[in-house]
Amino acid sequence: TQNYRITLLPGDGIGPEIMAVAVDVLKVVGKQFDLEFEFQEALIGGAAIEATGEPLPSATLDTCRNSDAVLLAAIGGYKWDSLPSNLRPEAGLLGLRAGLGLFANLRPAKILPQLIDASTLKREVVEGVDIMVVRELTGGIYFGKPKGIFATETGEKRGLNTMVYSESEIERIGRVAFEAARKRGGKLCSVDKANVLEVSQLWRDRITQLSQEYPDIELSHLYVDNAAMQLVRAPKQFDTIVTGNLFGDILSDAAAMLTGSIGMLPSASLGASGPGVFEPVHGSAPDIAGLDKANPLAQVLSAAMMLRYGLDQPKAADHIEQAVLQVLEQGDRTGDIISPGKNLLGCRAMGDALILA
Amino acid sequence: TQNYRITLLPGDGIGPEIMAVAVDVLKVVGKQFDLEFEFQEALIGGAAIEATGEPLPSATLDTCRNSDAVLLAAIGGYKWDSLPSNLRPEAGLLGLRAGLGLFANLRPAKILPQLIDASTLKREVVEGVDIMVVRELTGGIYFGKPKGIFATETGEKRGLNTMVYSESEIERIGRVAFEAARKRGGKLCSVDKANVLEVSQLWRDRITQLSQEYPDIELSHLYVDNAAMQLVRAPKQFDTIVTGNLFGDILSDAAAMLTGSIGMLPSASLGASGPGVFEPVHGSAPDIAGLDKANPLAQVLSAAMMLRYGLDQPKAADHIEQAVLQVLEQGDRTGDIISPGKNLLGCRAMGDALILA
Ligand SMILES: CC(C)[C@H](C(=O)O)[C@@H](O)C(=O)O
Ligand SMILES: CC(C)[C@H](C(=O)O)[C@@H](O)C(=O)O
Repeated sequence: TQNYRITLLPGDGIGPEIMAVAVDVLKVVGKQFDLEFEFQEALIGGAAIEATGEPLPSATLDTCRNSDAVLLAAIGGYKWDSLPSNLRPEAGLLGLRAGLGLFANLRPAKILPQLIDASTLKREVVEGVDIMVVRELTGGIYFGKPKGIFATETGEKRGLNTMVYSESEIERIGRVAFEAARKRGGKLCSVDKANVLEVSQLWRDRITQLSQEYPDIELSHLYVDNAAMQLVRAPKQFDTIVTGNLFGDILSDAAAMLTGSIGMLPSASLGASGPGVFEPVHGSAPDIAGLDKANPLAQVLSAAMMLRYGLDQPKAADHIEQAVLQVLEQGDRTGDIISPGKNLLGCRAMGDALILA
Repeated sequence: TQNYRITLLPGDGIGPEIMAVAVDVLKVVGKQFDLEFEFQEALIGGAAIEATGEPLPSATLDTCRNSDAVLLAAIGGYKWDSLPSNLRPEAGLLGLRAGLGLFANLRPAKILPQLIDASTLKREVVEGVDIMVVRELTGGIYFGKPKGIFATETGEKRGLNTMVYSESEIERIGRVAFEAARKRGGKLCSVDKANVLEVSQLWRDRITQLSQEYPDIELSHLYVDNAAMQLVRAPKQFDTIVTGNLFGDILSDAAAMLTGSIGMLPSASLGASGPGVFEPVHGSAPDIAGLDKANPLAQVLSAAMMLRYGLDQPKAADHIEQAVLQVLEQGDRTGDIISPGKNLLGCRAMGDALILA
């Protein structure tokens, strides 16, 4: 038996209900594959603010550090939107990324044949789309200094942030991306704004240099505005994309939306060593929280990514992904992905269907 | 007779051929509306680099300053891609924007019923889409300092740029956007990343404050990642969008691509006073330059925007826009927007069709 300590961060909104489903699925799969999970729950986001006044209590970070992987659901809600930014749920997420050194964010956007009609794009445009966005997650303008709101001599305020990357930061995310491309279609597109930004020129130079170590990977470069366009125009041209923190935030969401069902999309955030964090791409959906209406599949697929990338248990991961495909194949749908003739299930019932699948 | 001095900047690639069509159309419309245009041509971009070694010779900026409006075609090409960035064609464009103080960039993305099938999105998703992106154009990370590539103590290089906005910069673009929304559907969506960036917090605060002066406009706020998503998910929800330089670059291109035909989209760049610059959204398309294959309609519609926003001649602008709709209605198409059963025309022939329309 293989033992794993897993920290669960259910967070806010629909977080607890989708997390409950993922845990049930993990327990069943654990039995089948002889894996034993020790789950420990901790507070983050709005839930942590309510209980402790802080979005990321230090006890939470300690618990995460002492585990083999972290499964996160979702954070945030209207309730905390007017707090100062360093006390908001989002600050907990950024603190977690920085605290665990999670510099590599993997965001797959894959069209599932069963859900292709959920896309707002034409079938022939999105059929077969399978994109992996590799986003740098602990650098760039999210963490660069100086930053803040300052008064000028005239008394006028100026807000500023700094977009900054060092060669070593670029190289380390570049390596993750080249390796990911190697396991996929062998194509890597690096996205920057090198025609305007110096930080992007360094990015492009370093990625280009690095490509000499990966002669089997076909490297291309796009400016971020063109990349946003190409995702809408012809998304099938993309295999793996690598980009900085801010551009990755924007492009991975655009790519996710091509699938039409962000309730289906997981993500992984990984560091050089230590536990990774696995979480759905979607938010906490406070409007449907507690109503048993949420789609738990992105959370369940995040658990699969945890098995694959965090615990090196690809077979158990495959098994979960197959179960998801099977429930879709048999017509089970939550409200966000329902279409005529399919079976509408609640969050809990979708979990039960997965366990039987 | 009203007299206007117009600077023409044909630039690179297909620039000269589409500019020739726009000039012919302006001449004809001028006669009909009793407007006299004095055209003066000047160098910019790659063409200027070849002739003078600089992407924006000072003579060009002087000529522009001494005119009532500037009509620009397109700049850039593979040929100049390996030059250092301050000598590249793009530097000419940025210099023109800064030199003329063009802080407001208006980028309409409107679905034309005749071309709706060119969109990669489903008809029901894009039918009726009519978005105006108001992008700040002389501030933000495009011009913020410090910037550059620096060596750290360890010898490692760091690239950095500064995203900065002052209250007065936010206010002045905000006013343009609120006024634009007032002439349109009365809805304004401000896009930022206020959950992470201080510069965006100032942006959101200042726009919110300003909205008190525009009680008739319905203001909303979106984070840039969500905005990119919503443009793909449900673009009809947008009327007018206001955002900073970098986010505007990305989102206006994504919005443009929703129409499926960026060969049709014009833009206007305006300052507090002095001449504006009017140009197509598309690039210089070096691969089809000189082949009489380019679509001149975005250039012609840019001339219409010049008449409307630069010279206050809305009737002449209407007339050009009607002519464009009429040639589309009668089935005339260039190669980029051709579909079965339509008449394929070259660039020149499309110009002739417009003049007869
Ligand atoms: C909530 C927010 C801070 C976060 C980000 O911008 O990284 C989110 O949009 C994401 O992509 O995970
Ligand atoms: C060519 C480039 C400098 C420019 C920009 O980024 O502003 C272009 O993409 C645009 O949007 O006009």
